[in-house]
Formats: sequence, C-alpha cells, structure tokens
Amino acid sequence: MTEERDKRILLAHGGGGRLTANLIASKILPRFANDALRQLGDSATVHAGGGPILFTTDSFVVKPLFFPGGDIGKLAVCGTVNDLAVAGARPIALSMALIIEEGFEMDLLDRILESAAAAAREAGVEIVAGDTKVVERGAADGIFITTAGVGERIAELSMGQIRSGDAVIINGTIGDHGMAIMSQRKGIEFDTPIRSDCAALSPLTCAVVQAADGVRFMRDATRGGVAAVLNEIASGAGRGIEITQDQLPVNAAVQAAADMLGFDLLEIANEGKVIIVVAEEAAATVLDVCRSHKLGREAAVIGRVLKAADEPMVEMATAVGGRRIVQMPYGRQLPRIC
Amino acid sequence: MTEERDKRILLAHGGGGRLTANLIASKILPRFANDALRQLGDSATVHAGGGPILFTTDSFVVKPLFFPGGDIGKLAVCGTVNDLAVAGARPIALSMALIIEEGFEMDLLDRILESAAAAAREAGVEIVAGDTKVVERGAADGIFITTAGVGERIAELSMGQIRSGDAVIINGTIGDHGMAIMSQRKGIEFDTPIRSDCAALSPLTCAVVQAADGVRFMRDATRGGVAAVLNEIASGAGRGIEITQDQLPVNAAVQAAADMLGFDLLEIANEGKVIIVVAEEAAATVLDVCRSHKLGREAAVIGRVLKAADEPMVEMATAVGGRRIVQMPYGRQLPRIC
Repeated sequence: MTEERDKRILLAHGGGGRLTANLIASKILPRFANDALRQLGDSATVHAGGGPILFTTDSFVVKPLFFPGGDIGKLAVCGTVNDLAVAGARPIALSMALIIEEGFEMDLLDRILESAAAAAREAGVEIVAGDTKVVERGAADGIFITTAGVGERIAELSMGQIRSGDAVIINGTIGDHGMAIMSQRKGIEFDTPIRSDCAALSPLTCAVVQAADGVRFMRDATRGGVAAVLNEIASGAGRGIEITQDQLPVNAAVQAAADMLGFDLLEIANEGKVIIVVAEEAAATVLDVCRSHKLGREAAVIGRVLKAADEPMVEMATAVGGRRIVQMPYGRQLPRIC
Repeated sequence: MTEERDKRILLAHGGGGRLTANLIASKILPRFANDALRQLGDSATVHAGGGPILFTTDSFVVKPLFFPGGDIGKLAVCGTVNDLAVAGARPIALSMALIIEEGFEMDLLDRILESAAAAAREAGVEIVAGDTKVVERGAADGIFITTAGVGERIAELSMGQIRSGDAVIINGTIGDHGMAIMSQRKGIEFDTPIRSDCAALSPLTCAVVQAADGVRFMRDATRGGVAAVLNEIASGAGRGIEITQDQLPVNAAVQAAADMLGFDLLEIANEGKVIIVVAEEAAATVLDVCRSHKLGREAAVIGRVLKAADEPMVEMATAVGGRRIVQMPYGRQLPRIC
C-alpha cells in the first residue's frame, strides 16, 4: 500500500539526503537510463565536438535572495562551476535561465545579474546562453535561477579509483553557507557575522589536479553537507571512511550558531568546500596546494579510507574520545538553502 | 526619470516580444558581454572538447501543465532540442532541472517524467544530468522545468548569410500550441479539438540541411510567434521580408479560436514550427524534404526576403488584397505559454 506521504512531493525530496536519493532512484533513473546519467556524478560526460565534454545543471531557489557572503546570482554561477570543477573539468561556459515573479524589483534583478557577472569573471567562465520567463504574482517566490555548464576534462576522476588508505581532505571550514542562510532567515545576529563560503572552486581544483598525480575523486559538499558526500563516497567506493572530529576545520561563530539552533555542522550545506580523496603519498602535496590558495588556507586531512566492506560506513572519532556513525542525512533540515 | 512601470518586472518581460528584447539589451548584454552571447542565437557556440559545440537553455513554466498534444515534460525536451536543431545542430544531450512545489502530486510527476523520457527517445537525445529542488507550498506553481542542451554542428547558419530574393518557408500550420493552451485555460471546447504542435524538430531540420546547400538560417517560432521571428530575421539580416497571408498554413479550428478570443495567429506561440530562410534555387528541394516528413506535411513558401534596408520591415500581402506591416509583438498577450 502506498502511504499518503508517498503520494506527494515533500520538502525533504529536495534536501539532498536520503529522500532525494530515493526519488532519483525510483523516478528518474528508470526512465532516463543511460550510462552518463547512471554515474550520478557532479557532471556528466558527453561526447560532442570531437571529444568528451562535461555537462551539468542546477536550479537555485535560495531564500533569502541576498545573504552575507553572496546572493542567488553568485550562488547560481559558483554552484554550477563547482559541479564541473570537482568532476575534474575546467569550466568553459554557462547558461543561465531566470524564472521571475511579476512585480519583482528591477533594482534587485540588477544586483543579482551584476553579482552573477562578477562571479563568472572571477571563475573565468562566460555566460553564453540564457532565458527569461515571467510568471504572475504568487506563482513563484521572487526569482529562481537555473544554470547549466560545460567544461573540458583535465583529470580522470572516479570513485572507482579510491583505495584503502587514501587520505580525505577538505579545503576549509564546514557549514558556513548553511548557517549564514539560517542565521539570516531567523534574524539571529552574532558578534562575528557568519558569511557564506560561496565561491567558485575551479581555480583551486585545477591547481590540485595539475600538481598531484594521486587525486582519485572530488565532490563539493553542498546540500546534505560533508555527511552526505562522505556517505556517497563510502557507498560508491565500497569502503568505509573514518574521520576525526578534531581535524574538521570549523569557524567558532558557525559552531555557536549550529549549537544554538540544534544543527549538526556535518549535515549543513557548504558552497565553497570540496572533499578531495587522494592517494596517501600525494596527500601532502594536495594539502600544500590547498593551503597556498586563498580558497584553501584552512585545508586539512580529516580522515582516511578504510578497507573494502559490504556495508561501508562513515565513522567519526569524536573530540571526547568516542566513536559515532555519520549517517546519510534525511534531508529535511534546510529547505531552500541553495 | 524612471517610470514606475520600469522599476518592476512585468509579465510582458517574459513574453518574447519587445519588452523581452529590451530587458536583454539593457540588463543582460552589458553585463555578460561575450561573442557567443552577443549573437543572441537559439544556441551559443562554445569551443570545448576539441571542437565547437552548440549550447542552449530554456525554462518552462507552462500553465496548465497538461494540454492537448503535450505537457510540460514533453515541452521542456522539445523546446531545447529545437533551439539546437534550428541552430544547425544535431542534439546530443540534455540536462533537466526541476523546481517542484511541496505537495505536488507524485502521480503528476510520474506522468511528466514519462512524457519527457518519451520525447527524448523520439528526438534521439539522452538526458544526462539533472537537479531537483523543492520549495514550500505557495512558493511555486506546481512544477517548473529548465532544460539545457548540447549539440554538434552539422550546418553553418546565420542571419548574415541571408540575401535578397531568399525564400521564407514554414513547415506547417501556425498558432496551434498557443491556441491549444489558451483554449484549455479558458475552458473552451471545439468540435475539432485544438492540439499543440509540440514536437522535436531535429529529425526535420537535420534532413533539411543535409539535403539542401542553400539553407541560410532557421529559427523556431515560439513565444512571439511567426511575427517575432520574422522581425528578428529582418532586423538581423538588414532586409525587409514580405509574406503572403494566403500562403500561411492555418488550421481552421485554430483560426476560429483565435478570432473568437481576439488573437492574431502570427503572434501566437508554436512549439513545432520552424521558419527556414533558403536561397531561392534551393527552396523547392527544402519544400520537398519538409513535405515528405511527418513534421512538414503542410510546409509552404510563405514569403521572400526583400532588398537591403536601413529600417527593414515585415510586410504582409493580406487575403483581401491589402498590405499591412507585421510588427514585433509587445509580448503581453500570453503569459506562461511555454
């Protein structure tokens, strides 16, 4: 029997956690079966123009539209650039499609477009195609932006290359984006303002894969946070992952906000953070490259890949000396975080 | 002085007519200046993967979601396939990003995805990347879909190649999609039901450019209808265009609906119609190819390109023996037509 809650879309279906994964597995994959999609990578490989290109898309519905450290325009550019970047690509071009609510202020549109243009310049990509649709008042909430992107492969990465003993690296503090949005939304102010980490990662990821040979796989930790990405990697690699809580870079104000609001930072969205799985012997090089880059000053080795397992899990050695399992988030905590 | 109406987004800004063109010229182009975007083609040319690829995007917000002849899923696939097709490309792969309102019925989502998958199969493209966002009740109207697409160039087409004397061909009846939507929306029924012409044009356009050498330019007549496309072509080619009303293929029931509701079919959206500008000597070949294809049975030469002009206009020889100017539509007639 189908339960009533299975008959309708829930907010959690868009949360990037278990329900999103279920939706994709039950509704999307069976209908659009093809090798490229089945990988469920951050970007798909397409053969066109004589060679392989990487191709990806994301919609952005973030609320509020403006937040410390960014806005929906910057986010829409960085988010898609990052999906290309972590797949081992150099981003080349983006498309940008706007769905705008009738009555939306032209001044806000100006600011959003300006910000998107600045982010694209900084990431070195051109926005080459676009579309604008307007819906009547009440049919959308201000503005939604969908970007797609194409890039050129500069490194062959995959979860299948991951080996036991590989190091797990992150390029900086976790949870900044999600907590910046939540603080803004709840009207909470802190002495040290919380800023989103929203940034285009391609300059960093290109530097990393060009400097080191042993990079196996990268993924940006957006919806579902580091917890979701580590679980996806463990599952895809067929190997457990062990992380150490003390090694996780955390911004003190962000931790305070998370504690106050009852969130686990591991499950909170980032918009400028990448998990890099790298051969043990190349870890030091990758760490050096990250730390010498403005997007990776606080990079750290946060864990390692364990031996092959039938039910690979993500475990964390806690700060107080215990161990806990880091689960795949369910996905309902933070609607419209990106 | 900025007028109050210039301070906010109007429905007409998304109508595909003059206000859309103004918005693009004033807000988009100055900020995202690059050669590919500046063309304002149906697809942009991007150099990636060793060769040129074509890249495009569109958002779909059609209301109602289901209509005779199609639904938002089919439309989202065909619309983007067509933007590639008319640019002289063979479509290769699409992305599909969903923005869904919380509470949306899973059954409807199933039907929409099923329809999108069928349309993709028919067009011979794979949907290789996607995204799903869910927004709270009231923050969107059911579901919006944004597709992007990449394709391989099989013909070099541009408005710059258009010459005086070229023939203007359309592959069939005009206004079917828009009138199907409007009839559905207004609850009007006709003895002969009006069906949208929603279809993937790539099988037809690929056949046309492979059969004939003299194809100059193609554009699908969506928002803004045939009137908008002809004005864009006249302006881009720097040459007037003359069409003959009697030559325009029209479905009688669609004409009746348009008359009843007070619409000019030239301004009504199509989703399976392409305007083909072709050298006079190749017109017969193109017409033959169209008429022998299921998407072009009622194809017709509807006009020709006039001599170069400073202010090129589109003129129509009317059925009653007069002449009238076919203007660029203002764009406010039909919100959410696609």
